[in-house]
Amino acid sequence: MKVLILVAHGSRRESSNEEVRRLAAVLDASDAHDFDLVDSAFLELAEPDIVRGLVKQIENGATEIRVVPYFLSAGRHVVEDVPADVEKVKHLYPEVDIQMMPYLGSASAMGGLVLELARG
Amino acid sequence: MKVLILVAHGSRRESSNEEVRRLAAVLDASDAHDFDLVDSAFLELAEPDIVRGLVKQIENGATEIRVVPYFLSAGRHVVEDVPADVEKVKHLYPEVDIQMMPYLGSASAMGGLVLELARG
Repeated sequence: MKVLILVAHGSRRESSNEEVRRLAAVLDASDAHDFDLVDSAFLELAEPDIVRGLVKQIENGATEIRVVPYFLSAGRHVVEDVPADVEKVKHLYPEVDIQMMPYLGSASAMGGLVLELARG
Repeated sequence: MKVLILVAHGSRRESSNEEVRRLAAVLDASDAHDFDLVDSAFLELAEPDIVRGLVKQIENGATEIRVVPYFLSAGRHVVEDVPADVEKVKHLYPEVDIQMMPYLGSASAMGGLVLELARG
């Protein structure tokens, strides 16, 4: 069972967390990929946190997990904090194939997305 | 003269600001749009700020400005702070056509971009 987890920072503003959960839900319902499930987790300030979010999927049968950091820049969160939490889960479940993927802001298609918005 | 300004939050980490400036520079050098110039500005913590960034382009001849908020969620910055600074410039230069465009996180193509990253 292959699972994609979108990991965002988390916000005190619940509507911001809901935007991330909604994006994960839209992807979960989409046929445009071969993941069996798409879910979200948060570094801080929102539920579930990264460890709990990944463990939940593993206990539900995930054998492959891909983690996409939903962050715009390669700051400390992307470079250190998110990977550190993911490492904890890898250590607990060494048999599960868990991979950190590139963060959102590094996507080559970001420029095209900005232009789409700029055109209105 | 038509100008696109990418407005980001700004960070104490200069490399994060540079990521935004680099994206604007890549778009500026691209032929994939009809803007005469693409530049960046920051809400706080980095230069130029929004008012200065827009005024610079107007003084250089911009007659149409499109502002794309480079933010993932519709928090206070997107809803209040960025528009408030843009309004100041509109008030100073009512003859210039300045428009706020939708923020990054609202782009319909965001899901596809996440999937691109998830595939590796």
